[in-house]
Amino acid sequence: MAEYKYISSLQNPMIKKALTLKEKSRERKKIGCFVLEGVRELQLAVKGNYELETVFFYADIIAKEEVLGLLGQEIDHKVIIEISKDIYQKLAYRETTEGVVAIAKSKLHSLDSLKFSNKKPLILVAEAPEKPGNIGALLRTADAANLDAVIIANPKGDLYNPNIIRSSIGCVFTNQIGVGSTEEVVEFLKSNNIAIYCAALTASEKYTTVKYTEASAIVVGTEATGLSSEWLENATKNIIIPMEGEIDSMNVSVSAAIVIFEAKRQRDS
Amino acid sequence: MAEYKYISSLQNPMIKKALTLKEKSRERKKIGCFVLEGVRELQLAVKGNYELETVFFYADIIAKEEVLGLLGQEIDHKVIIEISKDIYQKLAYRETTEGVVAIAKSKLHSLDSLKFSNKKPLILVAEAPEKPGNIGALLRTADAANLDAVIIANPKGDLYNPNIIRSSIGCVFTNQIGVGSTEEVVEFLKSNNIAIYCAALTASEKYTTVKYTEASAIVVGTEATGLSSEWLENATKNIIIPMEGEIDSMNVSVSAAIVIFEAKRQRDS
Repeated sequence: MAEYKYISSLQNPMIKKALTLKEKSRERKKIGCFVLEGVRELQLAVKGNYELETVFFYADIIAKEEVLGLLGQEIDHKVIIEISKDIYQKLAYRETTEGVVAIAKSKLHSLDSLKFSNKKPLILVAEAPEKPGNIGALLRTADAANLDAVIIANPKGDLYNPNIIRSSIGCVFTNQIGVGSTEEVVEFLKSNNIAIYCAALTASEKYTTVKYTEASAIVVGTEATGLSSEWLENATKNIIIPMEGEIDSMNVSVSAAIVIFEAKRQRDS
Repeated sequence: MAEYKYISSLQNPMIKKALTLKEKSRERKKIGCFVLEGVRELQLAVKGNYELETVFFYADIIAKEEVLGLLGQEIDHKVIIEISKDIYQKLAYRETTEGVVAIAKSKLHSLDSLKFSNKKPLILVAEAPEKPGNIGALLRTADAANLDAVIIANPKGDLYNPNIIRSSIGCVFTNQIGVGSTEEVVEFLKSNNIAIYCAALTASEKYTTVKYTEASAIVVGTEATGLSSEWLENATKNIIIPMEGEIDSMNVSVSAAIVIFEAKRQRDS
């Protein structure tokens, strides 16, 4: 049965835990939990089979029944806790709030756990992406394109940074995501016979001339330094989006989307 | 001849003017000037025929000769002013600074001033874009695609917001940009026989089935509300990027880039 409580003290250990998880990547990694916020995010996390440890709600904004409705049938394993206005304002991250904040268990995102129902999967790999906003935009695009997986190689931080969750508008929960070192990811793709197409400004082959109809990974690096040589040397092909302007630079999520949707176009036609 | 000065007082009227222009859109509109910062931005503004009213430099970071070099032959119309560290820190916007900040004259961006050397121009129109980061990314993509123009319909603010200049990494200076009300822009496109392709989640025609090889405008709305009915009703065709995920939403600059580069692909092949 669900256990109901009311917390109004900032000294409460659960509140302290939530605040720490919100702010510190190290704590998220150590404890294996993270904080999410918002109705859609909660729904997507439930749908994505995330285990919710605690669900806090502020009754002036959202009713207990509505929270229970969001959680579906899985309520008996949860602790649903009503919190005071003061606590909610401390926990809430966004200006437009929806009255609900939860602690959820992180997934491990091991490469071995990735499963492909599609025999010719289309995968996005991003090496060492830095800005949470870029990671969020990549995940939104991957969701829209219904990619078979997103893989982060050599991650700079954890996936459950509140800015990533927010900028992905919950797509961090809807995508199948793997994480590993560049070496591990290259090995994983090769052993699964997935072609490696690396986007690079130094490449000579236009991205439109490559066929992405077999199992393919589209690989993008950072805006500042591009992909590491390890990727370029292991590529099936290095590809370029021709740039014709004054500045040879597009946002990384924009570049990734252009190649992903060219692959989709080829697969659809 | 250029006039050389040194300013170390925050009370200096030119410094006050620069600070005001940096912060207030209303002042930028009223005075018709704006502030830019950084070596690349200065170079691109000069190349884009922006008139520089004042160029401030902080000699510990950049030498006067280097600033003169950036300005090319146009130095006799400028006032180049050395500033103290205190002033520079007040004026500088970015963490990674390059020692140079300038006041430049805004362009009018009237639709009538747009000139097309290409008989079949490819244009991006964005209606009421709100986030400076999105506008910056749109301008970067437009530059990379070497679009014939970018038009902002029903602008929510001015183009010379420091966050737009920064996130566009100077592409606000490299693109030919027009601004007008939606009504004016529709009229402009029609009278120039430019086909109007509106990206809309309610459209039924896939963006890949349309031919963009004649004079074409690709029109995108906001992420929150999409395009106004005025656009949808005046479209040559409304087009959709099929979304296959949990969330029917991509970043607006990503959506625009997908359609722009499909148009480029068609034109190149």
